[in-house]
Amino acid sequence: MKWKDIGKANCSIARALSVLGDRWTLLILRNAFYGTTRFDEFLAGTGISRQLLTQRLARLTAEGIFEKVLYQEQPPRYEYVLLPKGKALAPLFIVMVAWGDKWMDEGKGAPITYVHSSCGHVVTPVVTCSACGEPLHPDDMQAHPGPGAQPNQARPKARVTS
Amino acid sequence: MKWKDIGKANCSIARALSVLGDRWTLLILRNAFYGTTRFDEFLAGTGISRQLLTQRLARLTAEGIFEKVLYQEQPPRYEYVLLPKGKALAPLFIVMVAWGDKWMDEGKGAPITYVHSSCGHVVTPVVTCSACGEPLHPDDMQAHPGPGAQPNQARPKARVTS
Repeated sequence: MKWKDIGKANCSIARALSVLGDRWTLLILRNAFYGTTRFDEFLAGTGISRQLLTQRLARLTAEGIFEKVLYQEQPPRYEYVLLPKGKALAPLFIVMVAWGDKWMDEGKGAPITYVHSSCGHVVTPVVTCSACGEPLHPDDMQAHPGPGAQPNQARPKARVTS
Repeated sequence: MKWKDIGKANCSIARALSVLGDRWTLLILRNAFYGTTRFDEFLAGTGISRQLLTQRLARLTAEGIFEKVLYQEQPPRYEYVLLPKGKALAPLFIVMVAWGDKWMDEGKGAPITYVHSSCGHVVTPVVTCSACGEPLHPDDMQAHPGPGAQPNQARPKARVTS
């Protein structure tokens, strides 16, 4: 399978990766979550080249993750503001930070600690079930064909154990 | 900044992306969570080329995400088993599936529905604070220099609003 066909696969991870499975894209989105909206700020904050940044911002805008908004008329200048589809990636980045803090810290501990303002504790994110509130684990999740399933939809086995 | 220097940046997302920020790597890990352990299964399940798969599996093994285990002696055959550092990526994939289900479903609904065995409800994952149990939102997380901070550590602003 060519990479450009990945987005057509009837799998939500493959589809997500068809947009997100690009290293610079994820770094651009990281900076968007840190408040960056302007081209030159993305350029400085990520170290990406102008050409790649232009391509990636156009792609993320076409995908409905950013809205391109005029903020200055002469000369025309735009900023890139996260739309709901982009803001909905916040949990992904929160979970990615936690994994990096724990497994990629070179033994030095987290470079940044986050404090949960509403409770005052240092944040340790847990992915939980919205129905029962318990932590989710792949072993405890049974896959069934969903409304968007194809007739011959493969049913993945989750057999990861902890 | 060259991509190979990203892993040196004192940021947990950049470090995580230095390992995960590769589209095929994330697809290989998806299949590992679906139970795939053998080279030919990864080949068939992802559509990656043999050469890229060999490279990516070697990298993931060197990073301590997979353990390469001999399962047959003549001829020698290996399987790739997720180590704790790899299993700890489960929340990332659970959250990515949910985002793809909601935002990349082409209006057809989720291709696969997951049922939480312990409570019987369809899974909607929520990223919560382990201390208070409330959903986490970047706006409600204050960044402070952590134990692994550098003296001139930039303090990110999280100003995403929902």
